[in-house]
Amino acid sequence: MTKPAYVDQKSALQKRLKRIEGQVRGLERMVDEDEYCINILVQISATTRALQAVAMNLLDDHLSHCVSEALAKGGPSADAKVKEAQEAIRRLVRS
Amino acid sequence: MTKPAYVDQKSALQKRLKRIEGQVRGLERMVDEDEYCINILVQISATTRALQAVAMNLLDDHLSHCVSEALAKGGPSADAKVKEAQEAIRRLVRS
Amino acid sequence: MTKPAYVDQKSALQKRLKRIEGQVRGLERMVDEDEYCINILVQISATTRALQAVAMNLLDDHLSHCVSEALAKGGPSADAKVKEAQEAIRRLVRS
Amino acid sequence: MTKPAYVDQKSALQKRLKRIEGQVRGLERMVDEDEYCINILVQISATTRALQAVAMNLLDDHLSHCVSEALAKGGPSADAKVKEAQEAIRRLVRS
Repeated sequence: MTKPAYVDQKSALQKRLKRIEGQVRGLERMVDEDEYCINILVQISATTRALQAVAMNLLDDHLSHCVSEALAKGGPSADAKVKEAQEAIRRLVRS
Repeated sequence: MTKPAYVDQKSALQKRLKRIEGQVRGLERMVDEDEYCINILVQISATTRALQAVAMNLLDDHLSHCVSEALAKGGPSADAKVKEAQEAIRRLVRS
Repeated sequence: MTKPAYVDQKSALQKRLKRIEGQVRGLERMVDEDEYCINILVQISATTRALQAVAMNLLDDHLSHCVSEALAKGGPSADAKVKEAQEAIRRLVRS
Repeated sequence: MTKPAYVDQKSALQKRLKRIEGQVRGLERMVDEDEYCINILVQISATTRALQAVAMNLLDDHLSHCVSEALAKGGPSADAKVKEAQEAIRRLVRS
């Protein structure tokens, strides 16, 4: 099996996701303690931004590695990789 | 202390945040198992959308309760509530 | 007929929309002249941001005037105004 | 000079931008006629979505042509093209 594109930054990625998990648990705690809506909204925005930043990093790695290598090799699998990346970008722009 | 605007849907909100926490843990597992980037990106988009939906719900409640009540009473605190909501919307649109 | 919420900044608003129209015409010119994709994308992002800023301003005015006045008066039309604003915010967050 | 990636759909692109220009002029008319804020916001959302769709199309073409060709050739200009595309995607996700 091929290594994923993010293999070189795997532990950094795991750390970032752990922190995001902590942010979500912080949101739960805020609701438990009847925290003011606006304060919760501020924390949700921060969590969303952190998730989006992880997504952008993954996409960067994906383009620099998987897609680039497939295109360097050429062939129908290269086109498929580009198409797949385009759909991922579309979802990212929309979300 | 006044109850937060989301008091009537507090347990639904807690359930949704628990599910989002589960989604983030799912992301960590995917990275641990060297899952393909694109599959992780799909799950990040789903998680981001779930967070945004919670934010929209909170904002709805906030406008229907806190802001509406402050405006019904009037006075300077009403203006402050509107201003605060406008900033929250701005953050939401941007994130 | 009641004046719209943006009446006090009407000429500023007209000027901003005129400028956005100019930006779109600039995009057309870039395509006519076979300009490089990335340069066009930079200009589209700028135009989108300008449109979003106009939307946020309009929404601010709408909340500070129409919605605030309806809520100060109270009654069923107040609820309708809040609901309508919530839908507008939802569209704005999504777009 | 090389043809831009969108050369095959140039006239379709010009038509879409013309239509967006018309939408912006429609917005100006709405303001001139003191149209209700919410109705203007609906039209701004439609215009923003139309612009984003054009951007996604351009980016698709750019990845399928410019970036793919540069990567098929390889060399430092390939890396530069990927980096440039990543920045364009980042701007698009943010706007």
